[in-house]
Amino acid sequence: MGKGLLIVVSAPSGCGKGTILSEVLKNDSFFYSVSATTRAPREGEVNGVNYHFLTKEKFEELIASDGMLEYAQYCGNYYGTPRKAVFDKLEEGKDVILEIEVQGAMKIKERCPEAMFVFILPPSLGTLKERLLKRGTETMEVIEKRVGEAAREIEAAYKYDYVIVNDDLQTAVDDFITAVKAEKMTVKRSEKTIDGVLGK
Amino acid sequence: MGKGLLIVVSAPSGCGKGTILSEVLKNDSFFYSVSATTRAPREGEVNGVNYHFLTKEKFEELIASDGMLEYAQYCGNYYGTPRKAVFDKLEEGKDVILEIEVQGAMKIKERCPEAMFVFILPPSLGTLKERLLKRGTETMEVIEKRVGEAAREIEAAYKYDYVIVNDDLQTAVDDFITAVKAEKMTVKRSEKTIDGVLGK
Repeated sequence: MGKGLLIVVSAPSGCGKGTILSEVLKNDSFFYSVSATTRAPREGEVNGVNYHFLTKEKFEELIASDGMLEYAQYCGNYYGTPRKAVFDKLEEGKDVILEIEVQGAMKIKERCPEAMFVFILPPSLGTLKERLLKRGTETMEVIEKRVGEAAREIEAAYKYDYVIVNDDLQTAVDDFITAVKAEKMTVKRSEKTIDGVLGK
Repeated sequence: MGKGLLIVVSAPSGCGKGTILSEVLKNDSFFYSVSATTRAPREGEVNGVNYHFLTKEKFEELIASDGMLEYAQYCGNYYGTPRKAVFDKLEEGKDVILEIEVQGAMKIKERCPEAMFVFILPPSLGTLKERLLKRGTETMEVIEKRVGEAAREIEAAYKYDYVIVNDDLQTAVDDFITAVKAEKMTVKRSEKTIDGVLGK
């Protein structure tokens, strides 16, 4: 098999992406790429786990030396994907998961068109709204806004390779792993296998 | 899900395609498309199971009325894929398997580009030769010829969507089912799912 697969995963918030990925990541063949940021750690956040917390100077140094696969500025802070860890793990044969929002994913698509793009969907916008309501942590106004944002984000799903509907958690986890396995059987990723059989 | 998937499966002889498919077909969601032919039934062959045995007149009538999805002549007999059964079963939501050689598969690709194309590979040409030798039913000359033919057929694998290596039977069966499941999650086959989530 040789090198691993770069897997870019997006989903509107409230779709259970985090839960799905933490289940998937129990499988040793996957590696989760931790983002870098210049924002200050919040209480309980651990450097290298939640984010790589970098100084602005270090972050800009990495941008300048092409050390970021993609990055963006948000509320005056940088957020990005450090390139080295991703490529090292791919080289080791790990399947590297980048959890990233839609704009970042499209930047990755330009730079790494060979990556696999997975979008996680809620069963419907109605279900998403219900889930957010059940949490009971946000006002109706905020929830309405988030559902509207989700709808805009889901418009980008058409540009991904696979969609997984998170109706049932275990099914969604199985679907994710199924898609990764099948992606490796696609002819575009198996030319060396065919060459090998033919002794080329 | 609505309509089923048309799955075209090719493999050189000796790759265990028949065994894999008979395992896959234990699953009710699949339907095996039986070919039609004008050749005479051999001893033990059952009409509608091994082939639909047709007269030359009936076969040519079907060709004329576009009733064959593809057909070819071989040793003076017609062989082909009756269109109606395939489309009826797809409409019912079954995943329809066409077991067909490379030329026929490429004809299907022209007419039904939305089909899924799967090529089953032996682990190597050496393994294929060993398997044919073990059967002990053919002379070395015939075996050499069949391995040469297999190599030519495998060259067509690059034009398929998925390759499955039949090293271990159960793994190959699982891989086949995995590929079918994942294919249904591809965005190109899930546009209606995304539309549905967005309430379009």
